Amino acid sequence: MKIDKNTNILIIGLGLMGGSYATALSEQGYKVKAITVNQKDIDYAVERGMIIEGSVQPDERFISEADLVVFALYPTVFVEWIEKYQHLFRSGTLITDVTGVKTQVVAQVQSMLRSDVEYIPAHPMAGRVRSGVEFSDASVFKGANYIVTPTDKNTDEAIENCKELGSILGFSRISVLSPEEHDEMIAFLSQLTHCIAVTLMTATDTEGLEKYTGDSFRDLTRISKINDLMWSELFLMNKDALLRQMDAFSEEFSRFRQYIANGQREEMRQVMRKAGERRLRFDKN
Amino acid sequence: MKIDKNTNILIIGLGLMGGSYATALSEQGYKVKAITVNQKDIDYAVERGMIIEGSVQPDERFISEADLVVFALYPTVFVEWIEKYQHLFRSGTLITDVTGVKTQVVAQVQSMLRSDVEYIPAHPMAGRVRSGVEFSDASVFKGANYIVTPTDKNTDEAIENCKELGSILGFSRISVLSPEEHDEMIAFLSQLTHCIAVTLMTATDTEGLEKYTGDSFRDLTRISKINDLMWSELFLMNKDALLRQMDAFSEEFSRFRQYIANGQREEMRQVMRKAGERRLRFDKN
Repeated sequence: MKIDKNTNILIIGLGLMGGSYATALSEQGYKVKAITVNQKDIDYAVERGMIIEGSVQPDERFISEADLVVFALYPTVFVEWIEKYQHLFRSGTLITDVTGVKTQVVAQVQSMLRSDVEYIPAHPMAGRVRSGVEFSDASVFKGANYIVTPTDKNTDEAIENCKELGSILGFSRISVLSPEEHDEMIAFLSQLTHCIAVTLMTATDTEGLEKYTGDSFRDLTRISKINDLMWSELFLMNKDALLRQMDAFSEEFSRFRQYIANGQREEMRQVMRKAGERRLRFDKN
Repeated sequence: MKIDKNTNILIIGLGLMGGSYATALSEQGYKVKAITVNQKDIDYAVERGMIIEGSVQPDERFISEADLVVFALYPTVFVEWIEKYQHLFRSGTLITDVTGVKTQVVAQVQSMLRSDVEYIPAHPMAGRVRSGVEFSDASVFKGANYIVTPTDKNTDEAIENCKELGSILGFSRISVLSPEEHDEMIAFLSQLTHCIAVTLMTATDTEGLEKYTGDSFRDLTRISKINDLMWSELFLMNKDALLRQMDAFSEEFSRFRQYIANGQREEMRQVMRKAGERRLRFDKN
């Protein structure tokens, strides 16, 4: 299989991410169908040309015709879906996903999946604070990172196809990591930052702070508007790595606190300079 | 005194903030002069119409003619300046500042200041990551907060004039706090967030993270490009409040960590929902 304009693409789960995939692919002339729980999301997507057609049921025709299936569901829902409906895939179907944690999900899905269907896991490092198909936006992929996380069960062909999908979607940088490396990385870069944002918003009950704030507090708490159902699941599925990264952060935070408490200005300045220099690498191109 | 187009305004320190004040005021037809250390910054500002004229010396004519003087210097430099040159002010001059910490600076300046000159402290909650007059931008004040921090040494007239200045500059919300209230607030909203950003950038030495990051890590570390000379001074001048706020954050962070460690999903979700609801108040209009 090679992804081209004749590839039948099926997106399962038309939320923010599924909708953004659909938009990006349809805009470039790819054929996209969708299965999702709410009819209004299908109507919305069909009206805007994001998909050709959609179904609120696991439509046998859609599933058996699909060459490439993208799962944009919560991790547990994804695993359950595979369990229940995988008999409907035609032989040779390639499936991928957008799940934010990998080790556990990939192991569960790959271990139960039919041997004539391949699951190549991926994580698009893009998103919006708001959820739902109506906030879909193909431009979220611009300048963003895309991580493919294959295991030894994956073929080179599937890895290449998955990278190609990332490239079609418009990601700026496409990388490959093992599921375990991915989860450790994501525990630090994404899950820890969400824990910090949530903590900042709940650390004090002082009223009226919005009258005095500058942009730095706004920046650090933007992501505290969190989908609690999804993120609590993601945190718990990656608990060990997340706790490790939270502890590493706390240790470094205590060290910096000590410099302040001791009035060690030179040490403080060294840490600040190191931080500023490192941050340059993270600027978007 | 009442600020109008005939008011002689003198800005001392043409960096990012002094330059942005100069730009905002000149654009609206106010008469602005400046004293700063580098001739090139004066040339830059005069060429662009940000100031009428400038001097690298504490010019006696500028100082004695000024009705309103805005200090945009580092805290310690501001205090030293007053000590050395306050004899040059004419009687009745109103002075204000942009200093990011208040209690100590306000007490030092007000206690030594001539009785015929009034210092009304203020903190514009706006800025840019980059420093220097060439990054000046009057639009930083749009949507931003401005805090006046008077003491019992200040007159109602000066407080009103200082609020009026904030309004002329284009701030969206102007508030009044005591220097102590201000410093506690700023320890939480601004200094703590900078400590977190710096810590995130230095918590791990793993290379190549920029290839895998999403926007959440970028958001939380934007301000880690910090002016280490200025911020180390600000942190140490507000040490007690900052340490208190760092400890409050750490305590809340540990609580959230415990929920994750124990798999207390409902408690995690409650904290997340509280965070998201509170964050709505901080959206810019």
